[in-house]
Amino acid sequence: MNIEDKKKRATKWFKDIRNQICDEFESIEPNGASFERTLWDREDSDSPNASGSILKGGGEISVMRGGIFEKIGVNISTVYGTFSEEFRAKIPGAEESNGDFWASGVSLVAHMKNPFVPAVHMNTRMISTSKCWFGGGADLTPTFEFDEDTKGFHKNLKDCCDRHDPEYHPKFKKWCDEYFFLPHRNEPRGIGGIFYDYLDTDWEKNFNFTQDVGKTFNTTFSEIVRRRMETEWNEENKDKQLIKRGRYAEFNLLYDRGTQFGLKTGGNTDAILMSMPPEAKWI
Amino acid sequence: MNIEDKKKRATKWFKDIRNQICDEFESIEPNGASFERTLWDREDSDSPNASGSILKGGGEISVMRGGIFEKIGVNISTVYGTFSEEFRAKIPGAEESNGDFWASGVSLVAHMKNPFVPAVHMNTRMISTSKCWFGGGADLTPTFEFDEDTKGFHKNLKDCCDRHDPEYHPKFKKWCDEYFFLPHRNEPRGIGGIFYDYLDTDWEKNFNFTQDVGKTFNTTFSEIVRRRMETEWNEENKDKQLIKRGRYAEFNLLYDRGTQFGLKTGGNTDAILMSMPPEAKWI
Repeated sequence: MNIEDKKKRATKWFKDIRNQICDEFESIEPNGASFERTLWDREDSDSPNASGSILKGGGEISVMRGGIFEKIGVNISTVYGTFSEEFRAKIPGAEESNGDFWASGVSLVAHMKNPFVPAVHMNTRMISTSKCWFGGGADLTPTFEFDEDTKGFHKNLKDCCDRHDPEYHPKFKKWCDEYFFLPHRNEPRGIGGIFYDYLDTDWEKNFNFTQDVGKTFNTTFSEIVRRRMETEWNEENKDKQLIKRGRYAEFNLLYDRGTQFGLKTGGNTDAILMSMPPEAKWI
Repeated sequence: MNIEDKKKRATKWFKDIRNQICDEFESIEPNGASFERTLWDREDSDSPNASGSILKGGGEISVMRGGIFEKIGVNISTVYGTFSEEFRAKIPGAEESNGDFWASGVSLVAHMKNPFVPAVHMNTRMISTSKCWFGGGADLTPTFEFDEDTKGFHKNLKDCCDRHDPEYHPKFKKWCDEYFFLPHRNEPRGIGGIFYDYLDTDWEKNFNFTQDVGKTFNTTFSEIVRRRMETEWNEENKDKQLIKRGRYAEFNLLYDRGTQFGLKTGGNTDAILMSMPPEAKWI
């Protein structure tokens, strides 16, 4: 299969899983909250932006503010263009493509009203330079940990990994633990999950795995939400959640590669910062 | 005067102005809120930390949570040690001192309960490597702008600068505007003020100026607070302030040199992140 067909199939999948996730999460909301969608594109930007890169393409931001999902943002985007010399060195295969790149993906962060329901993040993407690879992952950030949630989350992701390659889960779980860590607090962002990148071996295998990650995330998180969403909570519980969200904001702004890279290359700020919590506190 | 005497005088001043500011701001609080002080030190850390630098010294964090000052943190610290090779290149005179440095300063961020009272930041410091210089500044972040506040703030800082050197204000005001800017939002953090650094000419002149900045800040901000603190406000006003604070958090975590540098060199996280708002929102 040629690269253009691969791009088409991946792009279509990211939209499909976006739809599946939005449908599932809307079905959880008791009072009919729904996602609001905003299309954005920058097809006309043929000249380098402030960072020296040329960025074209666009995407769609879906946001729902409901009674269960305090704020969930689901982004899909397909962008392409030419990285500046500075950024080329940081992206596999981008020197050889003279900076040309193409990237498509889906990314999601959910901040929940009930402090006993964990926050969650999921992202999968395909990137093409002179190389072509998949990356992504999912990780859970509870304020209050429940064994049933944590173990179930890890187990489902492990089963998902094992269906594709027995070497995946140990490697991707470790990568996740190392990545979602706040060194200045000496604490993890949450309880981890999986994180993978530069998966550039067999395209079909990697695409299958990436699809499975999306589907596994959807059923797994949905189950956790339904299990916890009716737990009673008080202001003290909520305050703990808001403090935890402060740490989440710290991670995203200080360390998250996607956020830093996106903002520095002139990406869509609204889409990138959709991950920020609706409300957060610092002591 | 030898460098040790300079260090003593500067350190004493930072403590003096800390006391003056805390006294003044406590006197504004109608119900007797006061600053809580926490000493910290790391005298024992003789070996390089995770960043490869050796950091010794300590400081004092003063925090007040009152009816007017929702949260104000005032830090003084005097730290010294040896920068890792990586950080040496970024600090004037640090290559020549083999990484040895000494730094003392006061820094302050106030987040106000009443959304019509602006947030404010002030920081002054003396740094010594093989060179020795002062740096600092003050800037105002209103959610709602009042000409009287903005013009008064700029005027008082201009008068302060002009008392020492007619070239200061145009240069330091511009530096402030450029520094406190969020490129990803294409918006300034607030209405500016002054920002200066690497002031390494005549030590006595620079020290006088630095003292004047602290005193000018104290009287100027106190006046603004007293003028606005009884303005009536509603939830909608407060929400605007919380959104503005979200941008403040973005600036500090994404761009602020002191925050980034402090966290990366293994500085005291509690002191560094004292600048974070007590509560913030993102749309």
